Amino acid sequence: MTIATALDALVPVLGERLSRSKPDLAAHSTSETHFAPIAPDAVAWPTSTDEVSAIMAVCHAHGCPVIGWGAGTSLEGHGLAVNGGLTLNFSRMDAVLEVQPENMIVRVQPGCTREALNLALRDTGLFFPVDPGANASVGGMAATRASGTTAVRYGTMRDNVAALEVVLADGRVIRTGTGARKSASGYDLTALMVGSEGTLGLMTELTLRLHGQPEAISAAVCAFADMTSAVNAVIDTIQIGLPMARIEFLDAATVRAFNAYAGEDMPLRPHLMLEFHGSAAQVASDARTFGEIASDHGALGFRWSDKPEERRALWAMRHNGYYAILQSKPGHRALVTDVCVPIARLGAAVEAAEADIAASPLSGPILGHVGDGNFHAILMVGDDPADLAEAHRLSDLMVRRALDMGGTATGEHGIGMGKLDHMRSEHGDGWDVMADIKRALDPKGLLNPGKLVPGNR
Amino acid sequence: MTIATALDALVPVLGERLSRSKPDLAAHSTSETHFAPIAPDAVAWPTSTDEVSAIMAVCHAHGCPVIGWGAGTSLEGHGLAVNGGLTLNFSRMDAVLEVQPENMIVRVQPGCTREALNLALRDTGLFFPVDPGANASVGGMAATRASGTTAVRYGTMRDNVAALEVVLADGRVIRTGTGARKSASGYDLTALMVGSEGTLGLMTELTLRLHGQPEAISAAVCAFADMTSAVNAVIDTIQIGLPMARIEFLDAATVRAFNAYAGEDMPLRPHLMLEFHGSAAQVASDARTFGEIASDHGALGFRWSDKPEERRALWAMRHNGYYAILQSKPGHRALVTDVCVPIARLGAAVEAAEADIAASPLSGPILGHVGDGNFHAILMVGDDPADLAEAHRLSDLMVRRALDMGGTATGEHGIGMGKLDHMRSEHGDGWDVMADIKRALDPKGLLNPGKLVPGNR
Repeated sequence: MTIATALDALVPVLGERLSRSKPDLAAHSTSETHFAPIAPDAVAWPTSTDEVSAIMAVCHAHGCPVIGWGAGTSLEGHGLAVNGGLTLNFSRMDAVLEVQPENMIVRVQPGCTREALNLALRDTGLFFPVDPGANASVGGMAATRASGTTAVRYGTMRDNVAALEVVLADGRVIRTGTGARKSASGYDLTALMVGSEGTLGLMTELTLRLHGQPEAISAAVCAFADMTSAVNAVIDTIQIGLPMARIEFLDAATVRAFNAYAGEDMPLRPHLMLEFHGSAAQVASDARTFGEIASDHGALGFRWSDKPEERRALWAMRHNGYYAILQSKPGHRALVTDVCVPIARLGAAVEAAEADIAASPLSGPILGHVGDGNFHAILMVGDDPADLAEAHRLSDLMVRRALDMGGTATGEHGIGMGKLDHMRSEHGDGWDVMADIKRALDPKGLLNPGKLVPGNR
Repeated sequence: MTIATALDALVPVLGERLSRSKPDLAAHSTSETHFAPIAPDAVAWPTSTDEVSAIMAVCHAHGCPVIGWGAGTSLEGHGLAVNGGLTLNFSRMDAVLEVQPENMIVRVQPGCTREALNLALRDTGLFFPVDPGANASVGGMAATRASGTTAVRYGTMRDNVAALEVVLADGRVIRTGTGARKSASGYDLTALMVGSEGTLGLMTELTLRLHGQPEAISAAVCAFADMTSAVNAVIDTIQIGLPMARIEFLDAATVRAFNAYAGEDMPLRPHLMLEFHGSAAQVASDARTFGEIASDHGALGFRWSDKPEERRALWAMRHNGYYAILQSKPGHRALVTDVCVPIARLGAAVEAAEADIAASPLSGPILGHVGDGNFHAILMVGDDPADLAEAHRLSDLMVRRALDMGGTATGEHGIGMGKLDHMRSEHGDGWDVMADIKRALDPKGLLNPGKLVPGNR
């Protein structure tokens, strides 16, 4: 067998860092969401670019699929070894290699998590802003073009990856991008690799853009009579150009789950949560300005604070929202939708999604990064296969509507296995162009098969 | 002949909008800089996406090269028909198709110039910020990943193109990107097309990001005793996070050329010119803060204004700098360098470039977008072939140094024909990956041959 031959050839290279043990395979066969486990044939823990290159050369020679693995926090089954093969766990390549504060960049290995990175940056006056919630690895975040709560101000991984070192399908190592702030030199291979989900190469080093730690942070929270009022407050806030660092929406169902989870008694209404970054005077003024806009839309119980402890308390519902929802249905798993629409269509998109879910037997609290036009319905599915089918029906409805509105099937979670069925409707012949690029860079189809591109199995 | 066959087949489609007249060929054979003229076999003026698609299908069937032409302002010979073929002039596809103020985007045809676009946006409260100086077409700007004076605040074309319609080499039409503010759906084909210099497809529609027109604008100008003091003032300004909309450097040689051109009497010293965008109070405060930083670095003759007429007068030297330099040597043409380095290396890079030029028989005033680490030496070459060879020698020195510093050969002008020799040193095997992508999307090599990728002739 070609996979077995490749793995046998890797034993002398990797020693104990190559495992075929059941627990290791099981730990790399799962997903955070609704996908059934699929195990690889082996797991390896490389420690250097040279080693990744050597592994890739062997796997390329023998036709063994290779799947990158960061922190395992993907929601779309990105890490599942659908054709078997070797999963590369990057947790031993997690170093912060070099901080360049004067250039506001950092070189880091892919297994470093965003929390570990920010801990290392603590005393530099700088931070890495992209925050998808989970403590994901920066390699995984780049591979899925992740974003999260701060994208409205600091951008997504597309905007914050300056350069990469990538191991190609045949083991060659390339560097894309530079340490300069811009370049017009050739095809933007950095942008091509960001969001390619491990199907074009394996990132072994990332140069990330850093931002100044804000002098002050204020947080604000309020409830609204209905979702439309909340969303209209968001649109007004964006259109007057108020510089939000975060702006999050939580529907009444999310509040209910949080109250049960945390023993709280928040009003069962849609909420907005905001954060402002700047000087002390500026964030106080921004919070007050938002309070006025919210008030114009009938906001209730407006609160804000610039004190760290109080801010954390105000935002507890957002930080714990997803886990509160998961706990609200023990024994259930989630299918998490991720559409993103042009900002002016956000109200219509969320309203329609709420109506669909209300008419369905499934529960599906909604929360999201409304400053980007991106929201998630957390559709809870039990063991009955009809549940998953119904969740897919609801998800398909939301995607079709988002595409009709000029939006996208996925704002930040990526395609993986979960969104493949929407690629043709979103991209048309552009999906074939993606397949052409895939074949050009990985003609044997060994890099993360079954993800993102058509017929990639 | 295959080209002749293609052109004959296009006559019934295009009628008088296909020309083989000498004046038309001559008008599409030139470059703004030092390249010798190279004429295409014909020029066409398409009027719709369908027509571009039909033209491409015919040219693909018969093996006829196709070169896109915007406003003809490229500095690197991007529009030269090195293998002959058909040049597509997009000036009749110049419509502003749809402004969506609520989504802060505009749909526009590629032949629209940036000045025409901003004229159309005048009453919307929004503007398109990317400003390379020349009144380039937005299609050309996207194709070369242009930027200019405002990139330090608003980003480059990479950041401001949200979506594209592209005609592929075989005539298929794809749409990349969406109207949403972010997406994690598949390979970033928009970013791949931006900066691809017409070698992967022809853009027939662009969706561009818009920004709010600033409530107030202030401009500031001052001179410095030497270049190092000026550059250190820039680095300090960036590191305290002062939100500059533009920050430009002009050396003493540029000032001398401007004085001669405009009959002015500016001090023959390095200058910085800045612009701030924001509220009236904010821009006044920003200008004062910059004045203090500049003063710390020994600035002389600090002036600022927020009145439109005075601002224009303050910036006249920058707006006319390039043309003043060209006029300073009648009968000469320019080779314009374009390196971009990590911001902390900017002083060393400019100092070394000045020393090289001082030791050379050529004149080469330096100016540039120093907030990005990007600067240009305008190397003036006469008819003596030794001049061009010397200019290339100087340019190569600057590029090699920029690459050693972790920078790039071109911050904003692109590769075209002029920077091909630096691609291998900057990208290593990554240049072969670009060639793989080129072959995958344009196997016959018909789209803008001789540019950007290896062996693309």
